[in-house]
Amino acid sequence: MHHASDILLTLFIVFVAAQIGGEIAQRLKLPGVVGEIAAGCVIGPSVLGWITPEQVATGTPLDVLAEIGVVLLLFSVGLETRLEDLKRVGKTAFLVGVLGVLIPFGMGSLWAHSAGFDWGKSLFVAAAFVATSAGITARVLQELGALQRTESKVILGAAVIDDILAMLLLGVVVAVQGGEGFNPMSLLMVLGGAIGFIAVIGLGGARVMRWNSTWLDRPSNPQSPLLIVLALCLGLAYVSTLFGLAAIIGAFLAGMIASETRQQHTLEKQTMPLLALLTPFFFVITGSKIDLQQLANADALIMLAVVTVIAIISKLLGGFLGALSLGKRGAAIVGFGMVPRGEVGVVIASLGLAAGVFNDRIYAIIVAMSLLTAMVTPPVLAWLLRRSGSDTAETPNVSG
Amino acid sequence: MHHASDILLTLFIVFVAAQIGGEIAQRLKLPGVVGEIAAGCVIGPSVLGWITPEQVATGTPLDVLAEIGVVLLLFSVGLETRLEDLKRVGKTAFLVGVLGVLIPFGMGSLWAHSAGFDWGKSLFVAAAFVATSAGITARVLQELGALQRTESKVILGAAVIDDILAMLLLGVVVAVQGGEGFNPMSLLMVLGGAIGFIAVIGLGGARVMRWNSTWLDRPSNPQSPLLIVLALCLGLAYVSTLFGLAAIIGAFLAGMIASETRQQHTLEKQTMPLLALLTPFFFVITGSKIDLQQLANADALIMLAVVTVIAIISKLLGGFLGALSLGKRGAAIVGFGMVPRGEVGVVIASLGLAAGVFNDRIYAIIVAMSLLTAMVTPPVLAWLLRRSGSDTAETPNVSG
Repeated sequence: MHHASDILLTLFIVFVAAQIGGEIAQRLKLPGVVGEIAAGCVIGPSVLGWITPEQVATGTPLDVLAEIGVVLLLFSVGLETRLEDLKRVGKTAFLVGVLGVLIPFGMGSLWAHSAGFDWGKSLFVAAAFVATSAGITARVLQELGALQRTESKVILGAAVIDDILAMLLLGVVVAVQGGEGFNPMSLLMVLGGAIGFIAVIGLGGARVMRWNSTWLDRPSNPQSPLLIVLALCLGLAYVSTLFGLAAIIGAFLAGMIASETRQQHTLEKQTMPLLALLTPFFFVITGSKIDLQQLANADALIMLAVVTVIAIISKLLGGFLGALSLGKRGAAIVGFGMVPRGEVGVVIASLGLAAGVFNDRIYAIIVAMSLLTAMVTPPVLAWLLRRSGSDTAETPNVSG
Repeated sequence: MHHASDILLTLFIVFVAAQIGGEIAQRLKLPGVVGEIAAGCVIGPSVLGWITPEQVATGTPLDVLAEIGVVLLLFSVGLETRLEDLKRVGKTAFLVGVLGVLIPFGMGSLWAHSAGFDWGKSLFVAAAFVATSAGITARVLQELGALQRTESKVILGAAVIDDILAMLLLGVVVAVQGGEGFNPMSLLMVLGGAIGFIAVIGLGGARVMRWNSTWLDRPSNPQSPLLIVLALCLGLAYVSTLFGLAAIIGAFLAGMIASETRQQHTLEKQTMPLLALLTPFFFVITGSKIDLQQLANADALIMLAVVTVIAIISKLLGGFLGALSLGKRGAAIVGFGMVPRGEVGVVIASLGLAAGVFNDRIYAIIVAMSLLTAMVTPPVLAWLLRRSGSDTAETPNVSG
């Protein structure tokens, strides 16, 4: 039974590395995800070499666990996203979301093309500039005790819209890259198929669940609502790949549908242990794919600096312009709140690596950029929120 | 990204098959586990062929998911097992546990030897006759509304002792089989190592946790108690393989240690969604390894009948003799309560198959025997409990 021992030891190493990395990051007031990716980098071939590239290759058990982890993560993001919320946050959040996607996507694709990528690949690279990490943003606002502020609601609403647009964009660029390049007709068909799939499943599923979700409790198993939505998650993750979309889009839709059920609160609580066990595999394995050798020269470091500045400025600008109705300080808070990239940016970089669009160097740079934007945000946001702390009913509970 | 689609489709099929099988079984008043194994048999090569033997071979993603599933299952059984409970149920439970292991082990090994196995292999086969499924028993008693009866407490206590003895026995027979056969010296060393490991980790760990478990909450992550005990689970599962014990023994010990913490109740609730997602992979994949061709002849069916009768009689006898202090009817209830085999018997059969001790035919027969004992118990137990329903404070809540 040596195989069993070996895989158990690997699972133990990956899981413990994630916890140690996450804990160190949180002590440093950084999002835990930063530490988990860094831990993967440490146990990967760049430093310790405890995880080899062969162990995380496509189709290996660790790769499949990482895939399940990210599918569950996007499912849980969907579970916190109700169609009603999207409508209620209204025009400001929509503007912030749209501008916060278009400006980074535009600036990102211009940079990528100027750096030598053809247009099809440039759009793929630019997609990695787009997605704000709703998880990181929400966690930062929570840590600052600022979740009830108007700016926070706009940020969260915009992050949701941003997530959907970024996923749609991702589906489109993946399909374009995987298919016949920049063919406008196939682009339209991919777009139509993707929008149709999302609309039918999202709107239809949400309507069905809102109308009646008591049937989820009809099977004998007391955990049947969880079991049914997990089956829905796996099923829609698969079906979305049939539409040329990423599996995580289907998982997100499944979560959003499940958020309309009256069992939503229970489902959210039940999903937390699943994320706790499985998402670390995604982030650690992601980090283990970073090759520090690729960043160990002046050219690469300059490129990283340029990419990071573009990523911060473009997102800040989009958020600021979109939220100007809140005043300049409010708009700045929203703008910085949108800056952190995270799981979605890393997902796109991983997909790009798997599809052969990203080379090791641009992959390492994009992942490092995601880390840097996530690290820059918390202190800046804390400073801005403290300066305008008096306009909120509750005193922000800033510890430390 | 075809690999991602393929594995997602397989995960979806396995998970949904488990839910459908479990639901059908529960509607038929059978334990859900029976339906999950049957579902695996249906989607496996015997019937539909949706899961091929190559997909569940050692080291494949599905095999690793099944391994994680069974490790978590035994962790959760440990989480419901406190050292105090083992002491409190006292002499009767201990007698039932010991006799309920010795008699099936003795009768099982005599039968296996008479069926042509050498003594080393006969002990391994007999180990599969031993373990009562605490999960199945507890679920049956719960369904019958009889969990507060004296007999139920004895059954649960004895099932716990039975589980530990069976695991110890399993560790010993695996080591004996894997090593130099029936060498008394190495047997003693294996026994000593196993007992030492279990005693040091179990008693020492439980004492540490009982003395102080507030440190589990010290890390920043609000889910840190769960994360630490899951790391403990993976770590002890690995370490127990270093002592020649099965991984599930370490997982069970980790659960038992965790049951001594003041966070035990929360941990138990958090473990449920993990079991819901992952244990179906173990049972379905187990079922998919049954080859119905091997049972499709009179000889095999006769052997199955003999094995099942021995399994029922031997366990009933052990439980009955051990619990005679409760009177004849009480002893009969306890005896029948011990009859269902389940996950542990199937685990042993799987290990036997992997180790080359079991051929496909004896594997199919042992798994079928586990199913049959689990199917026979609920109606008999219900009948016995209804006949003696008046001696309990609460009216048993027997529905249907």
